[in-house]
Amino acid sequence: MSSDDTPNQPSRPARRGFLKAGAALGASLGAGAATSGLAQAAEAKHHAMSADPMLAVEPFYGEHQGGIVTPQQAHTYVAAFDLTTISRDDVINLLRKWTESAARMSQAHPAAALDYSGDDHPAADSGDVLGLGPAGLTVTFGFGPGLFTSQDKDRYGLAHKRPAALVDLPRFNGDQLIAQKTGGDLFVQACANDAQVAFHAVRQLARQGYGILTMRWGQAGFLSGPRAQTPRNLMGFKDGTNNPPTTDPKAMNQFVWATAADAPWMQGGTYTVVRRIRITLEHWDQMELGFQEQVFGRHKYSGAPLGQKKEFDNVDLNAQDKDGNPQIPENSHVRLSNRASNNGAQILRRSYSYNDSTDFYIERWPPWRQETEYDAGLIFIAHQGDPRTGFIPINERLAKFDMMNQFTTHVGSAVFACPPGAKAGSFIGAELFSA
Amino acid sequence: MSSDDTPNQPSRPARRGFLKAGAALGASLGAGAATSGLAQAAEAKHHAMSADPMLAVEPFYGEHQGGIVTPQQAHTYVAAFDLTTISRDDVINLLRKWTESAARMSQAHPAAALDYSGDDHPAADSGDVLGLGPAGLTVTFGFGPGLFTSQDKDRYGLAHKRPAALVDLPRFNGDQLIAQKTGGDLFVQACANDAQVAFHAVRQLARQGYGILTMRWGQAGFLSGPRAQTPRNLMGFKDGTNNPPTTDPKAMNQFVWATAADAPWMQGGTYTVVRRIRITLEHWDQMELGFQEQVFGRHKYSGAPLGQKKEFDNVDLNAQDKDGNPQIPENSHVRLSNRASNNGAQILRRSYSYNDSTDFYIERWPPWRQETEYDAGLIFIAHQGDPRTGFIPINERLAKFDMMNQFTTHVGSAVFACPPGAKAGSFIGAELFSA
Repeated sequence: MSSDDTPNQPSRPARRGFLKAGAALGASLGAGAATSGLAQAAEAKHHAMSADPMLAVEPFYGEHQGGIVTPQQAHTYVAAFDLTTISRDDVINLLRKWTESAARMSQAHPAAALDYSGDDHPAADSGDVLGLGPAGLTVTFGFGPGLFTSQDKDRYGLAHKRPAALVDLPRFNGDQLIAQKTGGDLFVQACANDAQVAFHAVRQLARQGYGILTMRWGQAGFLSGPRAQTPRNLMGFKDGTNNPPTTDPKAMNQFVWATAADAPWMQGGTYTVVRRIRITLEHWDQMELGFQEQVFGRHKYSGAPLGQKKEFDNVDLNAQDKDGNPQIPENSHVRLSNRASNNGAQILRRSYSYNDSTDFYIERWPPWRQETEYDAGLIFIAHQGDPRTGFIPINERLAKFDMMNQFTTHVGSAVFACPPGAKAGSFIGAELFSA
Repeated sequence: MSSDDTPNQPSRPARRGFLKAGAALGASLGAGAATSGLAQAAEAKHHAMSADPMLAVEPFYGEHQGGIVTPQQAHTYVAAFDLTTISRDDVINLLRKWTESAARMSQAHPAAALDYSGDDHPAADSGDVLGLGPAGLTVTFGFGPGLFTSQDKDRYGLAHKRPAALVDLPRFNGDQLIAQKTGGDLFVQACANDAQVAFHAVRQLARQGYGILTMRWGQAGFLSGPRAQTPRNLMGFKDGTNNPPTTDPKAMNQFVWATAADAPWMQGGTYTVVRRIRITLEHWDQMELGFQEQVFGRHKYSGAPLGQKKEFDNVDLNAQDKDGNPQIPENSHVRLSNRASNNGAQILRRSYSYNDSTDFYIERWPPWRQETEYDAGLIFIAHQGDPRTGFIPINERLAKFDMMNQFTTHVGSAVFACPPGAKAGSFIGAELFSA
C-alpha cells in the first residue's frame, strides 16, 4: 500500500516522488512497482550500453544463471548457508522468494515491495542502495551436498537426485581449512559493479531465510582492472588469461555446462568450486621479480608466458632456453594448471581478490613471525561441467607441486551445484523439486 | 636503468613500450620517469575534470595534506604502524621516503623508480595497479602518541613537542577495544576511487618500513553513493549530512585545522580520530522503519530531520509534535551529536563503511546467539582542530545515551596528529623534526 506524500508522512515518498528524488535511474522503493519496473528496465537496458557501470543491467531469467559466463563485474559478495528447517516446503518457498527478490534487485528494485502501512514489521529492504542503480547485479544460486544429505539424513527427499558430479572435495595437500569458512547447503553469489550493491543483495536474501537457515560464511571480493584487459590479482600478475572463451558456446558446453545424464535437472547448470586462498603478500613482495615470474611461469608486466612476448601468446610447455632447460619451469603455476598437463581439462575461473583487512597471524613459514598481517588474497571461484575432471585433478597437482604454495594457504573451500537459469514465473531449482 | 625491449628481456618493456601497452594514462613503470611524469600529470589533470574516476588526480603537495577536506573517494585503506627502531634518523628517512612515494603514487607512478638491472633485490613496487590510473589517490600521514613517548621513553627526542591536543583518548562507555585494532605510532590513510589502488599505496609504504616498524592494524573501507548525493551507510541512512562545509575556509579554520600555539609544527594540520565500529546488521534489519528513524532522528529515505521534509532542512531540536513531545527524540543520534548539544563543537566526519566478510561471533545482546555474523560496519574517521573539544565530549555523550549503541560496538580506536602538507622537496612532518 503506497502512501501519499502528506505532511504526516514526510519520510515516505510516494513512488512518483521517490523516483523523482532518488533514482536517476534504478532503485524503486514503491509498492506495486510492476509497471514502473518494466519502464525502468527498458530505460536501464538502454543505459546498459552506456559507459556508467552503475547503470548496467544484467538479465536474471534465462537459460543459464547470470554470474557464470557474465563478463566479470568489479565486486562480489559470496555466501553459504546451512539449512536448519526439516521442511521441504520451507526450502521451496525460500527458493521462490529468493528467485523473485534476485530478479527484482537485478533491476534495482528493493528485494520485496515496500509497504508503508505501519510499523508492525520491519521494512522488506534495508534501503542502503537506494538510488545507486542496478550496477550490473547478477545473483547466482547453488546447492551444496547438505541439501541432498546432511549427517546421513535425507531431510528433503532429494538424496536420490544428488548428481555424481557433486562430490565432496577431497583433502588437498596443504589444506588449512577453517570450518567456519568451508562448506554450506546453499550458495549465493552476488556480483555487481559496486561493493554495496553486491553485499546488499546477499544481506536481503539472508534475512529472508531467518528461522530456516543460518549463515555459514560470507565473503566480499573485488577486482580491479583496466577496462577490456585481464585484471591483475594482488600478486601483481594477470589472472584469467588462459580461460576458455565464454563467447564460444562450444567451449562452454564442453567445459562449463553440466551435461551428465544422471541429473537432468542440472542441464544448463554448472558446478562451482570456491576456495578462500590467503596470500602472504608481505613475503611475496620481498621476492625478486625473476623469481616471481618463475613461480607463475609468466612475465609479470606483459603477462606473456615465459620466453614469449605477449599475454595471449601460446603457452609452449616444450620450449627450452639456450641451455636446454624448460622456459616454463616444471613447478610453475602455468605449467601445472595448463590444459596439456591435465588431460585436456579446463575450468572457467571467475575469481576475485579479497581484502578482509588484517588480523593477528601465526605464520607457518620461516621466520615464523607472529604479527599483524594482511588477511587478503584470492577468493577463487571456478565453474565446470564436472569437478572430478576439472578442479579436483588440477588442484591435486597444484597442491603438491606448485611453487606458489609457499605464499598461499587454502583456508576455505566449498562445492555447489548451480542449477540452470529460471524461467520467469518459475524459480531456481524448480526441476530439482518437481515430482 | 631502463632496458630496451629486446628479445632477451621480453617481459620488461622500455618506458615507451610500456606506456603504449599498459597505461591509457596512469601508471609508469619506467625508471627515470621524471619527464614523462610531468607530462602525464598534466594530461591527468586535464582528465581529472572528465567523468572517469580512475583518471582523477589529486595534488599531493600543498598547504594541507590531501584526504582531509578532499571530496571523499569511493575506497580507503587506513593503517597504523608501531615503530621498532630507536633511531631518529630512521624515522626521518622513512618519512622522506613515504612522502616521495606517496607523491609518486598519486600520479599513478610506482612507489619508487623500477630498475631492471637484475634480480638481486625485489622490485620497488608490487605492480598490481599497473595501468589502473591515479584513481584520485590521496595519502594522508599522521603521528600517534607513541611517536612522542612510548612506554615512558622519548625515543626520538620529540616528547617536548607533543601537542596538548594529541591526548590519549579516554575509555568510553561500552568500548570493547581490541588491542590489535587500536592505537599506533604512525598512521597512513589512502583514499582512492578504486579498492586496489588504495590498498596498493599502503602496502608499498608498509614495505618500505620493514625492519623499523611493524603493522599494528590495517582496514579497508568503501563508500557507495549516487554522485553528488550524501552516501548511505550500511544502516541505510545518509551519513555526513550535517558536516561543516569543506568549501568554507572559515569553518575549516574553526573546526578542522589545528591552531594551538603549543605546536607550531601542526599549524595547517588536523587531529584525526579513527574508530572501528562493528554494526549488528542482522539485528538492525529486523527493526521497524519507524524505530530506526527514532534512533537516528532522521527520516530514512529522504534523510530529513524528523518532522522535516528535506535532507538539508534545519535540525530543530525544540520542535514538538502535537502531543508536546520532542520531534527528535532525546536519545536520538542526531540530537546527541548535534552542535547545539555540544557547546558548538563540530567535527568533520569522513567515514567509510567496512566489510570484512564474516566471522564467528558471540553476541553481547539477547538472544545471545553464537554464530557466523557480518564483520561489517563503519570505519569512523573524524578530523578536528582539537579532540578535547571535538570528538571526546561528543562521543562521551553518545557512548552513554545514544539509542544506536544497541546496534554498534566500538572495537578499534586511535588518534593521530596529521601534520600540514609538505612542500615539494620537503617531507611530511619536516617541521616537527627540524631543530
